[in-house]
Amino acid sequence: MEQQDGRIVRIAELEIDPAQLVEYRRFLAEEIEASVAQEPGVLMLHAVSERDRPEQIRILEVYADREAYEAHIRTPHFLTYKEGTAAMVKALRLIDVDPIALFAKTNT
Amino acid sequence: MEQQDGRIVRIAELEIDPAQLVEYRRFLAEEIEASVAQEPGVLMLHAVSERDRPEQIRILEVYADREAYEAHIRTPHFLTYKEGTAAMVKALRLIDVDPIALFAKTNT
Repeated sequence: MEQQDGRIVRIAELEIDPAQLVEYRRFLAEEIEASVAQEPGVLMLHAVSERDRPEQIRILEVYADREAYEAHIRTPHFLTYKEGTAAMVKALRLIDVDPIALFAKTNT
Repeated sequence: MEQQDGRIVRIAELEIDPAQLVEYRRFLAEEIEASVAQEPGVLMLHAVSERDRPEQIRILEVYADREAYEAHIRTPHFLTYKEGTAAMVKALRLIDVDPIALFAKTNT
């Protein structure tokens, strides 16, 4: 699952119950902000919803290494998200990916 | 297509001719690095390939506004990519998306 440099790069695809989408987005946004702010090994979490099918969520995830990922899924903010949204998630698919180029402005 | 703040956020899904995948990745990586380095309005370009289906490419794209996007697709580096890879791309799907949370470490 890891890259040669140890990083874990993944895409999560989720389908959310449309009736609970507003609340789901709030849970996810709070979890992402806390994870990147508080966890040194959570390098990137970018979550979007499809414009024409907003119940379809995609998240690009980058962790520094396996240990960072394992620590992440044991944090209080992740467990709050996972338990709080368990009944909202209709489908979850995790796709291991390999980076080709990851570039962003540093001030955005 | 724009967000309320004017940004354009999109996912591109591409399927590449497997026989030309190494060269395609090189074209794409060069185009992305040049775009983010040289264009103030290209805020983020993150490209990955699926581990188990490496011909499946996904790119998360964020532009500052419509003008930035229109300028981007007229740059020499974008045109080099577009023309150089035209015969490599078997399918291209562009998906407008809405951001839920976009967070990354600033030093990665």
